Amino acid sequence: MSTHSEQSAVTVLGLGPMGRALAGAFLDAGLPTTVWNRTPGKDRELIERGAVGARSAEEAIAASELTVVCVVDYDASDAILRRDGVTDALKGHTVVNLTADTPDRARDTSDWAAGHGIRYLDGAIMTPTTTIGTPAAVFIHSGPAKLYEEHRPVLDTLGGTHTHLGEEIGRAAAYDIALLDIFWTAMAGYAHALAVARAEGVSARELAPFAKGIGAILPPLFEETAEEVDRGTFSGEGNPITSAVSSMSHIVHTSEGHGIDAGVMRAAEGMARRAIGLGHGTDGFIRVAELLGRSGS
Amino acid sequence: MSTHSEQSAVTVLGLGPMGRALAGAFLDAGLPTTVWNRTPGKDRELIERGAVGARSAEEAIAASELTVVCVVDYDASDAILRRDGVTDALKGHTVVNLTADTPDRARDTSDWAAGHGIRYLDGAIMTPTTTIGTPAAVFIHSGPAKLYEEHRPVLDTLGGTHTHLGEEIGRAAAYDIALLDIFWTAMAGYAHALAVARAEGVSARELAPFAKGIGAILPPLFEETAEEVDRGTFSGEGNPITSAVSSMSHIVHTSEGHGIDAGVMRAAEGMARRAIGLGHGTDGFIRVAELLGRSGS
Ligand SMILES: NC(=O)c1ccc[n+]([C@@H]2O[C@H](COP(=O)([O-])OP(=O)(O)OC[C@H]3O[C@@H](n4cnc5c(N)ncnc54)[C@H](OP(=O)(O)O)[C@@H]3O)[C@@H](O)[C@H]2O)c1
Ligand SMILES: NC(=O)c1ccc[n+]([C@@H]2O[C@H](COP(=O)([O-])OP(=O)(O)OC[C@H]3O[C@@H](n4cnc5c(N)ncnc54)[C@H](OP(=O)(O)O)[C@@H]3O)[C@@H](O)[C@H]2O)c1
Repeated sequence: MSTHSEQSAVTVLGLGPMGRALAGAFLDAGLPTTVWNRTPGKDRELIERGAVGARSAEEAIAASELTVVCVVDYDASDAILRRDGVTDALKGHTVVNLTADTPDRARDTSDWAAGHGIRYLDGAIMTPTTTIGTPAAVFIHSGPAKLYEEHRPVLDTLGGTHTHLGEEIGRAAAYDIALLDIFWTAMAGYAHALAVARAEGVSARELAPFAKGIGAILPPLFEETAEEVDRGTFSGEGNPITSAVSSMSHIVHTSEGHGIDAGVMRAAEGMARRAIGLGHGTDGFIRVAELLGRSGS
Repeated sequence: MSTHSEQSAVTVLGLGPMGRALAGAFLDAGLPTTVWNRTPGKDRELIERGAVGARSAEEAIAASELTVVCVVDYDASDAILRRDGVTDALKGHTVVNLTADTPDRARDTSDWAAGHGIRYLDGAIMTPTTTIGTPAAVFIHSGPAKLYEEHRPVLDTLGGTHTHLGEEIGRAAAYDIALLDIFWTAMAGYAHALAVARAEGVSARELAPFAKGIGAILPPLFEETAEEVDRGTFSGEGNPITSAVSSMSHIVHTSEGHGIDAGVMRAAEGMARRAIGLGHGTDGFIRVAELLGRSGS
């Protein structure tokens, strides 16, 4: 850690599980850390660890050149930042917004910041709170490269890897949305699988070792199929969509046979059946990425 | 490999990508291997490698005490096995059915086999064709333990790990359904994420390294949440469902804003919103597993 970052003060707005983890990592790195949260009381443990608990967002912002925001979404972030006193306090300061939301909201916030002389970076956190301050944390950022480099020493104290994805402010949110899409869809599949397994007399603990095995085959498959999608080839030689759709219909059938809603798998099966209906039955399942995109912009 | 397995002959019915991989592994292990497929011509390369190509399923079955079946589903498996000549040929022989389908179909086939003096094991393959014959292959089996032990030396020549899940014949299919549920839901999420990323100007190749990172956090999360589900506790301390649902709605919004169907995520979001509506907003997302199951049997 550079001397610069050791001396840099930092403010954290939002003390949900993630905001608390971020503030905790700044404290562990020895940074003067000021915290604030809409609902009082969430700063208690952080204050015990050396943080300054501000009585208002304005007061918190005034304490540091850099303010990190991490709340549930940009409605919450707007509710905090876009009030006269707060906007005034931010003038000439830097905001790094690590709140998750859509690329459009990041772009809109960047415009608002520019209009008020506020320096603005957008970012997203791709790993759970437990990874913050450890090498396992993953952060992505977008916005002015020079501003990013300026604050990089402070951001680095959060641990893990930080990637600047480009100057276009919506880019971190675009990656975030796509990555959360993978994450939450997979978790929905897992939750559903546990329900179906239980109905068949298989406990979560019995299924878990095999579920971990399935999880382990995903990363290399993600890489292989990404190349196919960019090339526009969709070989189903090893596993055609017709075979996938057969598995999907077994899942729907078994699930609904136990009275368990299968809406997620029904929607996935619909995507696959459309691909077959369009004549792509011998392609691999990943062909649906291209078809979904084609209907879009 | 034991002398026993080196001498054991084996028959493979069904020469799709997986059937061919299985027959190839038996050949590599030096087992006398007889193959047959409904549509002729798929046996060519296997015959070049030393397999005997039978002219009918009956002829193929007569060549070995053990017949491995691997076709698209049990409709296909029934179409092959449940014909008089074939059923007669199987009398006193063993069938290991590695075709994927529902637990009910496995149970039904086991009853049919018992009624015709056919020894029957059910199984499933949890890894792609490329893993067959390598340590990465994963096979699960169910049915009479003694019969499984008898044929284990031959099955072991397929490589990887083989797990006997119990005597109840539907058990392998139950695990298979649950595991395919995870797999195909995750792949549907990935395909969708690639479409949304592309609409935001992010290529599959750019997203892939981060997607792999998401894939890597799933296995430990599967393990942790499985324990929660079995215990019936669903702590949302690190990440409450309300936060998940916020991410989900951002995904739906961004996707549909690009004209890309978001049916899978809409269904997942619906599950999460129902959990919140039932008063579980501060729980973790995995609470939905319990709610899905509660509506079921
Ligand atoms: N937790 C994780 O594992 C994780 C991982 C990666 C990314 N993230 C992202 O990090 C961000 C924060 O997540 P989190 O886990 O800390 O919990 P969260 O439940 O998403 O957010 C809670 C925070 O949002 C604040 N908030 C909500 N509505 C507000 C409003 N109208 N005005 C002001 N503040 C409001 C809460 O303040 P009150 O206490 O006053 O309600 C609290 O500080 C989210 O965007 C999330 O997607 C989280
Ligand atoms: N491929 C993989 O990566 C993978 C991984 C794990 C498990 N599995 C499972 O392994 C099994 C076989 O899969 P696969 O990849 O080889 O390809 P598949 O496309 O699922 O199955 C193709 C096989 O099914 C046969 N078939 C289809 N309908 C038939 C019918 N009515 N009568 C007789 N035969 C019929 C085909 O014969 P024709 O050539 O005559 O059409 C061909 O032999 C499936 O249950 C699959 O879920 C596959």
